Amino acid sequence: MKSRAYASGINRRVLLTCAALLPIPALLRTGPALAQEAGSQLASWNDGPAKQAIIDFVRATTDQASSKFVPPEERIATFDQDGTLWVEHPMYTQLVYCLDRVPAVVAKEPGLKNREPFKTVLSGNREAMAKLSLRDLEEILFATLTGMPVEVFEAEAKKWIETAKHPRWKRLYTELTYKPMLEVLQYMRANGYRTYIVTGGGQDFVRVYSEQVYGIPPEQVVGTAAGTKYGYNRDRKPFLTKEPKLLLNDNDAGKPEGIHLMIGRRPYAAFGNSTGDRQMLEYTGAGDGARLMMLVFHDDAQREYAYGPAQGLPDTKVGTFTQALYDEAKKDGWTVISMKNDWKRIFAFE
Amino acid sequence: MKSRAYASGINRRVLLTCAALLPIPALLRTGPALAQEAGSQLASWNDGPAKQAIIDFVRATTDQASSKFVPPEERIATFDQDGTLWVEHPMYTQLVYCLDRVPAVVAKEPGLKNREPFKTVLSGNREAMAKLSLRDLEEILFATLTGMPVEVFEAEAKKWIETAKHPRWKRLYTELTYKPMLEVLQYMRANGYRTYIVTGGGQDFVRVYSEQVYGIPPEQVVGTAAGTKYGYNRDRKPFLTKEPKLLLNDNDAGKPEGIHLMIGRRPYAAFGNSTGDRQMLEYTGAGDGARLMMLVFHDDAQREYAYGPAQGLPDTKVGTFTQALYDEAKKDGWTVISMKNDWKRIFAFE
Repeated sequence: MKSRAYASGINRRVLLTCAALLPIPALLRTGPALAQEAGSQLASWNDGPAKQAIIDFVRATTDQASSKFVPPEERIATFDQDGTLWVEHPMYTQLVYCLDRVPAVVAKEPGLKNREPFKTVLSGNREAMAKLSLRDLEEILFATLTGMPVEVFEAEAKKWIETAKHPRWKRLYTELTYKPMLEVLQYMRANGYRTYIVTGGGQDFVRVYSEQVYGIPPEQVVGTAAGTKYGYNRDRKPFLTKEPKLLLNDNDAGKPEGIHLMIGRRPYAAFGNSTGDRQMLEYTGAGDGARLMMLVFHDDAQREYAYGPAQGLPDTKVGTFTQALYDEAKKDGWTVISMKNDWKRIFAFE
Repeated sequence: MKSRAYASGINRRVLLTCAALLPIPALLRTGPALAQEAGSQLASWNDGPAKQAIIDFVRATTDQASSKFVPPEERIATFDQDGTLWVEHPMYTQLVYCLDRVPAVVAKEPGLKNREPFKTVLSGNREAMAKLSLRDLEEILFATLTGMPVEVFEAEAKKWIETAKHPRWKRLYTELTYKPMLEVLQYMRANGYRTYIVTGGGQDFVRVYSEQVYGIPPEQVVGTAAGTKYGYNRDRKPFLTKEPKLLLNDNDAGKPEGIHLMIGRRPYAAFGNSTGDRQMLEYTGAGDGARLMMLVFHDDAQREYAYGPAQGLPDTKVGTFTQALYDEAKKDGWTVISMKNDWKRIFAFE
């Protein structure tokens, strides 16, 4: 598998080198100045098909003379977060947050101490925790993310994200964003694209830091969302309470559904890294004109992690880069980003 | 009641005239040039407390020297649509659309012909139609607004909105927007505010024309929303189908809840006209610093319609300007806009 991905990368690269020798109209129209500029804006990217796909797409859709020109108001680019914009291993950051919150929840509601799944989480036994079912995790998510006023949740999450550190790098999670992807966000915005996060993670959680970390304002974060309930405190001051009622499961088919609900426009570019992003990329690709679909492929065990088909994981594993996803990408002209080959550096602190 | 509202308007106007003779620091800071500019941008407004409240709010929140300055990214203003931005009588425009669609729905599903509430709608008997229950109307809404691909709905709604006319003025519904409110939208945007529609009407319906009519893009329309379902056609091309499943009832408490879901920020300014907007205005007013809460009061039977407490309607009527709402406005410092006194003209075509 790995050799196949590699060979495919080589072939495309060879083709591209040859193409560079020809007078391609698209290149001539935009000129070398713009090309250089894009090169410097994507400084953490190695030259190759992935970087080129981004530059070509932006050129085609922002050049008024191009048949694929997209009016500024329609320029929407959507980005998955976990595994696409920042590290998702060994555990989604938000899940780490929820597990960290369990002691505080149990302190308020002592009856939970001897009840599963809370008992297992309190034990600190990582092996037992890894075996918790999806249903168990859901119960932990609801218990730790709902039942409080919106402002209380925001303050708690903010405090955590400003102090909690990743076990491998001993750095803040917000430092574990991928430098090349931050450059793509900036590059797209510099070319009139509005960048949205479309994440399976909690909308309210990601909104707490999205502006500071990604330059993406809260109103451009679409995520899994629970409802809120309007009420009044004793002084009749109104406030919203986070409710354990799922409004939008922003994974898989939920991503295009969430995009329609929250944005109401089909994206022109979409970035993901797992089967949970498949429908978002399909939906993006089903639009007219130039569209850019990209998948971050985690094949760099040394600098980050390696997982997905190259590592021989079974296709059925939820939320990973399966063989079927890889095949669909090849068939539908999506571009696979090899972290190992396409990224000069991965983190800003390197 | 009318006399009381009128007297209150007079008192505020007298106060304001006196205030204009004093050297108020806020006025000095921004200077007469800006004041004139605001005056010309709000050309359809008579001078008075309502116009002044808008100008004072914008000055206080956009002047860097002001203690109430609001950073541009936080400048959010929300507007109800029906009765606030355009005419809602004798019937909400979207409901007219749904009733107009019934024959097409019945043609596709002939079994509905002899079933209520469709039978009554097909009869064309206005009196009987006016007696349909909320549950009946809900059934008509679901039957006419869901069950088709998103694109099919959009094309149908677009065609209708470009041709259907209001029975009184014999003009397109989109011509029946309030000129003074269009000026407020523009004025707020010229001062860095992002303007959102927050409507009890259907989100997908309003998005069809919001950009063209109000200059508000689809992603800034929050409305009552049904879910969509992702699927594939025979060629495996993906599409979204509108489902008869309510996700967000964007009325009453649903307005602040919808604002949190879709925007994730508390508005600094909110405009409404009925009890359905009460919670949105309360939620806006509960924020720190300068906030602007305004209610359009329909007291102009000659140029538009007169309804609400001045007309002696019972307080319990859903979705109107009740006495209780009027009292809350006075108590909480919300500004009531008198269509009769505050608006020089109502429509652009006048």
